[in-house]
Amino acid sequence: MNVDIGNALASEASPGVSRASLERLDEQVAEAHERIERGMENAEHGYEALNLPERTDPDEIRAAVEPVADAEALVTVGIGGSSLGAATIVDALESDTETVFLDNVDPDWISRRLESLPLEKTAINVVSRSGTTAETLANFLVVREAFDSAGVDWTERTIVTTGDAGPLCDLADRHDLPSLKVPDGVPGRFSALSAVGMVAAAVCGHDLEALLEGAAAERETLAGSLFDCPAYAYGATAYALDQRGAGTNAVMPYAESLETFAEWFAQLWAESLGKDELGQTPVRALGVTDQHSQLQLYRAGPRDKLVTFLIAGTNEDRPIPETQVEDLAYLGDSTLGDLLKAEFEATEASLAAAGRPNVRLEIEQIDEYELGGLLYSMEAACVLAGELYGVNTFEQPAVEWAKKATRGLLGGGEFEEANAVAEKTELRVER
Amino acid sequence: MNVDIGNALASEASPGVSRASLERLDEQVAEAHERIERGMENAEHGYEALNLPERTDPDEIRAAVEPVADAEALVTVGIGGSSLGAATIVDALESDTETVFLDNVDPDWISRRLESLPLEKTAINVVSRSGTTAETLANFLVVREAFDSAGVDWTERTIVTTGDAGPLCDLADRHDLPSLKVPDGVPGRFSALSAVGMVAAAVCGHDLEALLEGAAAERETLAGSLFDCPAYAYGATAYALDQRGAGTNAVMPYAESLETFAEWFAQLWAESLGKDELGQTPVRALGVTDQHSQLQLYRAGPRDKLVTFLIAGTNEDRPIPETQVEDLAYLGDSTLGDLLKAEFEATEASLAAAGRPNVRLEIEQIDEYELGGLLYSMEAACVLAGELYGVNTFEQPAVEWAKKATRGLLGGGEFEEANAVAEKTELRVER
Repeated sequence: MNVDIGNALASEASPGVSRASLERLDEQVAEAHERIERGMENAEHGYEALNLPERTDPDEIRAAVEPVADAEALVTVGIGGSSLGAATIVDALESDTETVFLDNVDPDWISRRLESLPLEKTAINVVSRSGTTAETLANFLVVREAFDSAGVDWTERTIVTTGDAGPLCDLADRHDLPSLKVPDGVPGRFSALSAVGMVAAAVCGHDLEALLEGAAAERETLAGSLFDCPAYAYGATAYALDQRGAGTNAVMPYAESLETFAEWFAQLWAESLGKDELGQTPVRALGVTDQHSQLQLYRAGPRDKLVTFLIAGTNEDRPIPETQVEDLAYLGDSTLGDLLKAEFEATEASLAAAGRPNVRLEIEQIDEYELGGLLYSMEAACVLAGELYGVNTFEQPAVEWAKKATRGLLGGGEFEEANAVAEKTELRVER
Repeated sequence: MNVDIGNALASEASPGVSRASLERLDEQVAEAHERIERGMENAEHGYEALNLPERTDPDEIRAAVEPVADAEALVTVGIGGSSLGAATIVDALESDTETVFLDNVDPDWISRRLESLPLEKTAINVVSRSGTTAETLANFLVVREAFDSAGVDWTERTIVTTGDAGPLCDLADRHDLPSLKVPDGVPGRFSALSAVGMVAAAVCGHDLEALLEGAAAERETLAGSLFDCPAYAYGATAYALDQRGAGTNAVMPYAESLETFAEWFAQLWAESLGKDELGQTPVRALGVTDQHSQLQLYRAGPRDKLVTFLIAGTNEDRPIPETQVEDLAYLGDSTLGDLLKAEFEATEASLAAAGRPNVRLEIEQIDEYELGGLLYSMEAACVLAGELYGVNTFEQPAVEWAKKATRGLLGGGEFEEANAVAEKTELRVER
């Protein structure tokens, strides 16, 4: 991954960061880098995620999916960090395997998804570290029942990825299911390059070694200066812009297949940095589509945004057929890839011309190697930003409250949080 | 649609709006309502959108799609307001028709989408007011070529929705294609309830009258007080919260099929209000999925957000199968619908308990009538907010710059904007 932060400089944009400020910030980056390296060496909680390129064993993952080598479809049952990494990888890369991610509990939608799957040729990838995540376990029970109803033995089709103990772990033991471990010390949102993200990639036939090699190549760039390391350049710039008023970070890939990446990034950024009333709000956008939706706001709304472009060479191009219509003749000399590239350059320039800060992330093409590098770089950028903010990047305490309340509401025990639901203040305006 | 703004009151949240402030704001709402009514009566640009429930003719739309009554798939070629309204409607409602929206120019993606379609049973819905939108026309040329290559006569399968003149209008005349009009005075993002959004709904067999009737019922609620009108209650509260620091509006439907609604809302809000350095930034979220992604930030990050929940009765429920696992037994007494509802209530209460402002929008179920009402209400809320901000809600001047630059880059004429692209300031950090 390469980064260009030229359009985020104070000479170009407001808010912007001056070169002098970046150099001062670089001293903090050097200290943060030492902290990160130490955390990695000692396999500390969270920092351990940055060791995954060496720690993950692709052979083990391939062996686990061997029993479902005939799968034409894959249903992944997981939510949040147990789903988004896998979804990002398989949505980015082409494959003949149909993939479904059950990361919500909407009954209409689940029923429709299950009806559309050829169950006898479908593999199940169930992922939960604790083995007790309510949404995931409820969905897994529903999926099992659907397999039972169709007369397909779910124990022959299921791969479990979970922690060292808990209901899913017990279930895998009892039915002798292929089972992989959610790595210790790696929060879900940082686990794309472990079994959590890579089982789905393996079922779809993607090159696991290349994913890890791409990540390892970025690991080699981690260094004590943001000017030497693309990941740190991005993390430090995003942090500096937030400090100067860009509380929103709109991530805008120019490739449909990277739309899920923007969702993955949004979890990484929000859950890692959103604490102590700090943290930049990630917004998912998509080029060129959102030029016709969000660009007006980005260019002329409040000066509270950094726009992060992500561009990739297109793998396949397609000429635009010629037309006799005079006003459109110019399109006939171009390809769709040319149009996409021109739209990106024009949008980037239009923000720069309006003095709105933006950063460009570049990958050479969309393949396993580049994707592994991109995911790793963003994780390293996020860890660095967490050090600069001084927050605990690897915890997510604010989501516990609602989990307890949900459980209490469903009769799963006494939780005072559930009582608060009944005490809601209302001010209703009805039709 | 009903609205509950109780959790946005200053007594409950920070930022929040006090009842006294709401009553003062209500005087501005009364004036704004008069302005809106006058605009509607005089069919003024933009305000005319709120007249669509009476102006749109469902018979005309059904007649236009009659030639493709056998369609098993529909490809809509349009972008921004020419696509999102239609996508919102057909994604929300169930149908057997496969729908594809070509709202991007990514060549890999377009090729894959076209390969997956049964072209001889596919209808084409091409939408562009000017008939010159580069992305739409390029894609339409590509689609036509694909039909030609497959030996399918595209002129038998195409419905055009466009303005009174321009290349698409000429094309429809030349080939005698069924043709509908993008209504005058209605910006694209406000056109869901015209032919722009309803051709797709008609091809999918949805009840067009019910869509319009639901909208008309909300039109009847427009009144001189936010306490009498759900749409205004929402628009005024969102505005008041923004004034008090909630510059971000995270819209979080609790139904997968309403995910596209959040995208439609994001365009409506961003493009209408994002000007003069004002405007609230819309963020698309999805319950329950984003509880495991964004909730940490919403509950513990900066106090700069309003969370807008959208809930609907589920049309179909699904029991969670029983399990012997002790820690999960509580799930076995519930349905997925119960779980979804408990998750919503818990999340709403968890934000309230942390003093984070949120608003609840409720629709009875997801059907044509309720959806028409929801779309209309959000448009009316947006028009009201535009009056309160004092911006020109119905223009989008900031997107023109990039359009000219794109055209210049592709050799479609001399535009000084294109030159700015070459002058980009770089600060590159490479791997």
